[in-house]
Amino acid sequence: MPEADCRPVTNIVYNTITYEHPVNEKIRNLLRLEHLFKQVHHFLHGESPWDSRTTIATFMEILDVFGRADLKTELMKEMERATVNLKPHLEHPEVDDARLGNILRALERLRANLNGYPGPLGQELRDSEFLSSIRQRTAIAGGTCDFDLPGYHRWLEQPAEARHRDLERWSANLDAVRQPVELLLKLIRNSADFRPETGERGVYGQSLSANLPYQLIRIRVPAEQPFFPEVSGGKHRFTVRFMQPGERRSVQVYEDIDFQLSCCRL
Amino acid sequence: MPEADCRPVTNIVYNTITYEHPVNEKIRNLLRLEHLFKQVHHFLHGESPWDSRTTIATFMEILDVFGRADLKTELMKEMERATVNLKPHLEHPEVDDARLGNILRALERLRANLNGYPGPLGQELRDSEFLSSIRQRTAIAGGTCDFDLPGYHRWLEQPAEARHRDLERWSANLDAVRQPVELLLKLIRNSADFRPETGERGVYGQSLSANLPYQLIRIRVPAEQPFFPEVSGGKHRFTVRFMQPGERRSVQVYEDIDFQLSCCRL
Repeated sequence: MPEADCRPVTNIVYNTITYEHPVNEKIRNLLRLEHLFKQVHHFLHGESPWDSRTTIATFMEILDVFGRADLKTELMKEMERATVNLKPHLEHPEVDDARLGNILRALERLRANLNGYPGPLGQELRDSEFLSSIRQRTAIAGGTCDFDLPGYHRWLEQPAEARHRDLERWSANLDAVRQPVELLLKLIRNSADFRPETGERGVYGQSLSANLPYQLIRIRVPAEQPFFPEVSGGKHRFTVRFMQPGERRSVQVYEDIDFQLSCCRL
Repeated sequence: MPEADCRPVTNIVYNTITYEHPVNEKIRNLLRLEHLFKQVHHFLHGESPWDSRTTIATFMEILDVFGRADLKTELMKEMERATVNLKPHLEHPEVDDARLGNILRALERLRANLNGYPGPLGQELRDSEFLSSIRQRTAIAGGTCDFDLPGYHRWLEQPAEARHRDLERWSANLDAVRQPVELLLKLIRNSADFRPETGERGVYGQSLSANLPYQLIRIRVPAEQPFFPEVSGGKHRFTVRFMQPGERRSVQVYEDIDFQLSCCRL
C-alpha cells in the first residue's frame, strides 16, 4: 500500500512509496521475515483453499529463513543491543519516559519469551508430518498438486473455519519470532526522521560513518512518479540511482530528483 | 471446492470430494498446469499487491513446467490422438453429432493455434526483463522482498487496474497452452462414468488392461468422511488404500469403504 505521508507540503497531502535498503545481512533477514509474516497475515483468513495454500507455502518459506542463520541468537543479541542503546535515554529531558519504559519492558518480555522457546524455532511446524510432506514438494513447480498430496487435498476441501483453526495454531507458533522482528524494525525505522534531498542528474551519494554504522536506508518518493531508487554501497558509502522502467529494461533517469531520505540506526 | 454430486442418492444430495490419480507423466503435467492456471485465475483480479505477487509467482511455476518437457509436441500429439479416437464416434447412433462436431472443431482450432505459436511457449514472459529479474529470485525463500527488487516494489504499489492490465496480458500469452490443457482434461474426465465400489478393509485393487491403458483414475468420497484415498500402481494394476489423518502421521483405515470410481481413457 502506498503510505499516506500526512505532513502537509504546501497544503497538499500526497501519496508516497517508501523504499528500504538494508545495509547488512541481519537487517536483510529481519525484512525478509517481516515480509513473509505480512504475507501470512494477508492470506491466513481468506475463505478460499487457494488462500490457505498460499499461507502454507509462506510458512514453508519462513521455516527456510529460520534455517539459514542462527536466528534465535541474532534476535536475542539485537534486542539486548536495543535495550543497552535505549536505556540511557530514560534520563534525557526530551524523552517520553512512559513510552520508552513500555518499549524496554516489551523488549524484556520478548527476550524472555524467545529465550524460553523450546527447541528450534518453528518446532511445531517442523514436527508436523502433514506440513513436512508438503514442504518436501514446495521446491517443485506445481509440486503440491492435489494428486501429489491427497491428504493435503482433503485438508484444503474442509470448510474455511477448520482450515483457519490449524493455520492460526501454526501461525501462533511463530509469534516468538514475529513479535521481536516487528518491534526491532519499528525501533530502527523510528530512529531517524526523513529529510529532503536531491539526486542530481538522477544520482545521490553519501558517506557513512564507520564508527556508528547505519542499518537501514529509507527513501520516499511520490507515488505518481514513474521512477524508483536503486541503492548500492557498503559500510562506508552508499549511492542512490533513480531508474525508470524502459522498453525492455530499466534505465537511469538523468533529471534532478527530489526525494526524502532517512538513514536509520538503533 | 467440494463438488456437488447432484445425483439423488436415496433422495439425499451430498457433497463429495474427488481425488485424481494420473497414471502417466503426460497426464501429471496436464494436471500440474491445470492446477497452476486455476491458481492464476483465482489471484489475478485480486485487489491487493499480495494477490498480484502470488499471480506472478504462479506464472514463474508455469514457465518452469513448460521448460520441463517438450510440452508443445506433447500437446499437439495428445490433441491429434483425441481427434483420431473421437472421429469414428460421429457415425455412432447414440452420439450427439452436434456436440462432438464442436469438440472436433475446437481441437482443430487449438492445434492450429498452438502450432502457430511463435517461438518457445511463454515467450513474452521469458523475454520480459522485469519478470526475469523476479524469476531469478523466486527460488530463494523471501527472495522477492521489496528491497531485493525495487522495480517490482514500484510495480506492486500501482493501482490494481494497472497491475491487472499487465497480468492479463501475460496470462493471455499462456492461453495457447491453457486452452488445450483444459479441453484435453475435460475430454479425459468425461470419458468414463463413476460406478460404486467398495474398498474391503480399506483397500481396493484392480487390474488394468495393458492394451488400452487408462490415463486417469478418479475416486469420489463423501466430503464429511475423514479418510482420503492413496493410489499406487503402474500400467498393469492399481491399488487404492484409504487413509485417515492420525496423531502424527496418516494411518490406514481398516473398515469397508464405499466409494465411487471412474477409470478414464481418451
